[in-house]
Amino acid sequence: MTTEQTSPAPALAEDDVDLIETTSDASLERTRRRSDAIEREIAEDPTRFRILTGDRPTGNLHLGHYFGSLLNRVRLQDAGVETWVLVADYQVITDRDGVGPIRERVLSLVADYLALGIDPQRSTIFTHSSVPALNQLMLPFLSVVTDSELRRNPTVKSELEATGDRAMSGLMLTYPVHQAADILFCKANLVPVGKDQLPHLEQARVIARRFDERYGRAGDGSRPVFPRPEALLSNAPNVLGTDGQKMSKSRGNAIELGMDADTTAKLLKRAVTDADRHITYDPVLRPEVSNLVLLTALASGRRPEDVAAEIGDGGAAVLKKAAIEAVNEMLAPVRARRAELAADEGYLLDVLRRGNEHANAVAEATLGEVRQAMHMVY
Amino acid sequence: MTTEQTSPAPALAEDDVDLIETTSDASLERTRRRSDAIEREIAEDPTRFRILTGDRPTGNLHLGHYFGSLLNRVRLQDAGVETWVLVADYQVITDRDGVGPIRERVLSLVADYLALGIDPQRSTIFTHSSVPALNQLMLPFLSVVTDSELRRNPTVKSELEATGDRAMSGLMLTYPVHQAADILFCKANLVPVGKDQLPHLEQARVIARRFDERYGRAGDGSRPVFPRPEALLSNAPNVLGTDGQKMSKSRGNAIELGMDADTTAKLLKRAVTDADRHITYDPVLRPEVSNLVLLTALASGRRPEDVAAEIGDGGAAVLKKAAIEAVNEMLAPVRARRAELAADEGYLLDVLRRGNEHANAVAEATLGEVRQAMHMVY
Repeated sequence: MTTEQTSPAPALAEDDVDLIETTSDASLERTRRRSDAIEREIAEDPTRFRILTGDRPTGNLHLGHYFGSLLNRVRLQDAGVETWVLVADYQVITDRDGVGPIRERVLSLVADYLALGIDPQRSTIFTHSSVPALNQLMLPFLSVVTDSELRRNPTVKSELEATGDRAMSGLMLTYPVHQAADILFCKANLVPVGKDQLPHLEQARVIARRFDERYGRAGDGSRPVFPRPEALLSNAPNVLGTDGQKMSKSRGNAIELGMDADTTAKLLKRAVTDADRHITYDPVLRPEVSNLVLLTALASGRRPEDVAAEIGDGGAAVLKKAAIEAVNEMLAPVRARRAELAADEGYLLDVLRRGNEHANAVAEATLGEVRQAMHMVY
Repeated sequence: MTTEQTSPAPALAEDDVDLIETTSDASLERTRRRSDAIEREIAEDPTRFRILTGDRPTGNLHLGHYFGSLLNRVRLQDAGVETWVLVADYQVITDRDGVGPIRERVLSLVADYLALGIDPQRSTIFTHSSVPALNQLMLPFLSVVTDSELRRNPTVKSELEATGDRAMSGLMLTYPVHQAADILFCKANLVPVGKDQLPHLEQARVIARRFDERYGRAGDGSRPVFPRPEALLSNAPNVLGTDGQKMSKSRGNAIELGMDADTTAKLLKRAVTDADRHITYDPVLRPEVSNLVLLTALASGRRPEDVAAEIGDGGAAVLKKAAIEAVNEMLAPVRARRAELAADEGYLLDVLRRGNEHANAVAEATLGEVRQAMHMVY
């Protein structure tokens, strides 16, 4: 191929670099206030918003996911916000040498979503690998992002520090750009995130703005092709694992949604507590006990302080019993639906196929606008 | 989005790193011998090969392209080798802030190809931006390439040195991977290249091999999804510009295929020569004069030594007259066809649409095999 690559250097604006790298306290405070305002706007008119959210299919969903993000998604969907749920299968290989039992995990994730109340009639569940026009957006998006921006992204940076740059894959390096494509292909204007993920969202906003400035607009030229997506900051409680650490399958401290009641009971019985028989809710000084109190409270719809007061001098054994009952009771209907769904692979595939079909139609329409803006219509 | 990115470091093999970075003399010699063998195999059975070749639509084609690669493509096509010709429109934005008059340039390139004898009945002419399934291959391919490999690619490296890593775009950094997708999506097993481009081809070979090792195979598992493409090293003469430097539009020293005869004559009359009236063919000691001799010889199908002997003491004026006549005579029919084609935009678009349709069908079939190998069939 005769492809010369010796032209002048690009001059990318780097004015948003600080936000791509870290989030200042002032900016976090602004985002929090804006999130609160958005919640009020959703209550008034949910149809103004479109949400993109999703998960990597690397394992089973657990209570950390449930209270941290899944409940919130179902709430937003039920409030009438258009919801897109991405099963991010290509993200599995950013930092792994193989795909693992990917098909099983994808279908399991779809079963989880449906069991929790994601409604495929109202929400679009889709997979990365099935939507070529989404993935094509990587190319123009990579052209408006600099190498150094990519390397300053906090996730990429910590991966670089952990592995040395020799071993980091190109897919990890470019993953913030792929995530921008996830958000922008369906023109989502709202992304539920934790504060650690604000830099990713800022990268997507920067890409949307630079595409607009550099390549042009859609339709008659009066509107940008892409919205500038906003963050919906989570107020979700942070549920820890049974050892008081971050809940994670690899730590063996996770209560998975699909577990049976007995396994759940066994896990919770082994949970770490402390020597003080008197149960209180004090997340700072007594993180392990307080986490069990919180779990019980969340699962039974009460305040943690009330749960702790009720147990009082009952000690860890009574607390664990309460936690087991509350969690298993809350999850019983979810688990029953999940088991039914998991047994019907044809239905899960059908949900995914319809979601992918919808995602493809929307991605192709967006790509059409991108080609028009870039004058690449032949 | 809840997309954790904190898993173990990948362990990519780096055994091919030296070839990706530079090409040793021994390896170059091997590649040259293999190229000669391939030429003999083509003469015996051209249907064993499929070629991918192409150009960035950044300007007009000139005699440097013509003698350096275009003639060779037409020769291979006419010999019966299946030929794919990529109009690499997304490569325009690797190092430019905008697309330029991209549509005009793309159509102009298609007119050049057709005027030169690329036959759309036998060869597939297509554009990057029109083939989403090709571009999707970027994602799995990026997962098997390391950051440091990308940065050691000679083109990327020189761009890094020229601009500092702050300014280099993500698209430039990842362009060797995109080029691998260009070659592999259509399963080309042969790529005509100059020796400077051997590291790019090696990167494509490495990606093909790692995909095979890591993700699996096509069909019943007996064959890799992708071939390991080989280089067809060019023996083409290196035609310089009218100033004795590399021919390039930006230097104003290029004779473009689409120029008229008068402009060609004016350019060649201004060509740099030297003080010795006696014309000889001595590329080392007399590069400018020898380049005019070579040009005359190539354009008229003679040996440069014979051209020089014929002119003898005629001096630069006679040499330039001979060059002008030979070049204009050779290009006259090409220019006539080109003018006709350029006036028929509908036909050019039709050629491109048919090429893109074929490229999409083949890309989707390949992507289907990729999904199957990766167990991402839902």
